[in-house]
Amino acid sequence: MNLPDQTGNTTASPAAALPALRVGEGWDTHALVTGRPLVLGGITIPHTHGLLGHSDADALLHAITDAILGGAGLGDIGRHFPDTAVEFKGADSFVLLQEAAKRVRAAGWLVVNVDSTIVAQAPKMAPHIPAMVLRVAEALGIEPSRVNVKAKTAEKMGPVGEGRSIETRAVCLLAAG
Amino acid sequence: MNLPDQTGNTTASPAAALPALRVGEGWDTHALVTGRPLVLGGITIPHTHGLLGHSDADALLHAITDAILGGAGLGDIGRHFPDTAVEFKGADSFVLLQEAAKRVRAAGWLVVNVDSTIVAQAPKMAPHIPAMVLRVAEALGIEPSRVNVKAKTAEKMGPVGEGRSIETRAVCLLAAG
Amino acid sequence: MNLPDQTGNTTASPAAALPALRVGEGWDTHALVTGRPLVLGGITIPHTHGLLGHSDADALLHAITDAILGGAGLGDIGRHFPDTAVEFKGADSFVLLQEAAKRVRAAGWLVVNVDSTIVAQAPKMAPHIPAMVLRVAEALGIEPSRVNVKAKTAEKMGPVGEGRSIETRAVCLLAAG
Ligand SMILES: [Zn+2]
Ligand SMILES: [Zn+2]
Ligand SMILES: [Zn+2]
Repeated sequence: MNLPDQTGNTTASPAAALPALRVGEGWDTHALVTGRPLVLGGITIPHTHGLLGHSDADALLHAITDAILGGAGLGDIGRHFPDTAVEFKGADSFVLLQEAAKRVRAAGWLVVNVDSTIVAQAPKMAPHIPAMVLRVAEALGIEPSRVNVKAKTAEKMGPVGEGRSIETRAVCLLAAG
Repeated sequence: MNLPDQTGNTTASPAAALPALRVGEGWDTHALVTGRPLVLGGITIPHTHGLLGHSDADALLHAITDAILGGAGLGDIGRHFPDTAVEFKGADSFVLLQEAAKRVRAAGWLVVNVDSTIVAQAPKMAPHIPAMVLRVAEALGIEPSRVNVKAKTAEKMGPVGEGRSIETRAVCLLAAG
Repeated sequence: MNLPDQTGNTTASPAAALPALRVGEGWDTHALVTGRPLVLGGITIPHTHGLLGHSDADALLHAITDAILGGAGLGDIGRHFPDTAVEFKGADSFVLLQEAAKRVRAAGWLVVNVDSTIVAQAPKMAPHIPAMVLRVAEALGIEPSRVNVKAKTAEKMGPVGEGRSIETRAVCLLAAG
């Protein structure tokens, strides 16, 4: 199954033999600071601190954006939406995720599902998760049943556990559409 | 492939066109303390320290539980087994993973495979991995060949590297069954 | 769909009913030190510091190696290439990834795609990513369009953010071939 082709290339198999599926992953972190709103999963959550970064610093949407771009082989969020880009300057992360989803579809890929985790010592995320799921699904243009958001603490250890930051993780499955 | 429908909705595609597959991910951490047994992957490992947390604090089974619940779109371990739940009070993590697997199946999903990593500075995990794989497979009700457990150190950096905690990671693939 | 079989076993489903696909994940970290070249994704990147570890300490290739071995149910990089192994002593991580890919194929699995992230505070990875993608694809024996590498900072927090280390993450999808 991994014979060299006529050019001597040892491509493992003809591409046509493989299923038209892709997996992608994303990770993000932002510092928690005073004087900023806490925006996660496309919604604003009441809290004493918010995430520091360009625009709304929505770490959950950033990880999901990276996962879908990564699965589609389109690079990462920094390549698509550099700080220097005029078109998306000041755009919130919801708009960037929408645009990323559009580019992923233009490349021929549909999002089958997204799973994700917010790691934060505070505040409690559980009450806000249903609203986040709806927002992520809306940005991706898919059914909410295809989106899952989980939440954990870091057990008081490391930057997240000490309340200095929030981390996020995401995976996605894509299918040719 | 992403034309607006008659309501103006730009849902990426009709659900029926997508493969009945899901990917899920999980992450967990617990502090290492004296005076507790070290329980990981459903087995007890001889060590000077154990993981702190409710019940047995089995970080590997927790990450896998989150991965399968997340892939199935069922939320997370905290939603299914809150500290306040009477039914599973004091239940070990093996029983919780079994119950999560049951709920995932009830939602129509079978576990195709699970891959995972334990990040711990000590003790050496390699000798214990075959036993963990068997236990995870047993809890999930799948063949052991569908379960993989890896182990790493954190190269002496951060809470894990300083021996203050253990972190775990998992991904899973689910298929409609 | 999860009836006990004649032995009373509650295996979730006959294996034949499940798609011949697997998902795998990998994570790695190495300390940044002076007096070492920085090797990531199979290329050497000009920088003041390099990664500490056996051989070239290529954290990106190590995470990808673990992901494909893990997806194939073959354990981890430490099992296949222990420090004590004579055959691969001093081999660079590119050769180890090539060998891991060979073993994954021998076990019947083809790599559908790999997505990955380098988390590093410095240097800028973006200019080097296309070269890394080509090298990873070459080691795996697959088309470069099936490989994606992303890059992030850790926002100056934790060992990575303080410039003391680099972390890497990878997921892969495998199909029976
Ligand atoms: Zn971000
Ligand atoms: Zn836990
Ligand atoms: Zn390594």
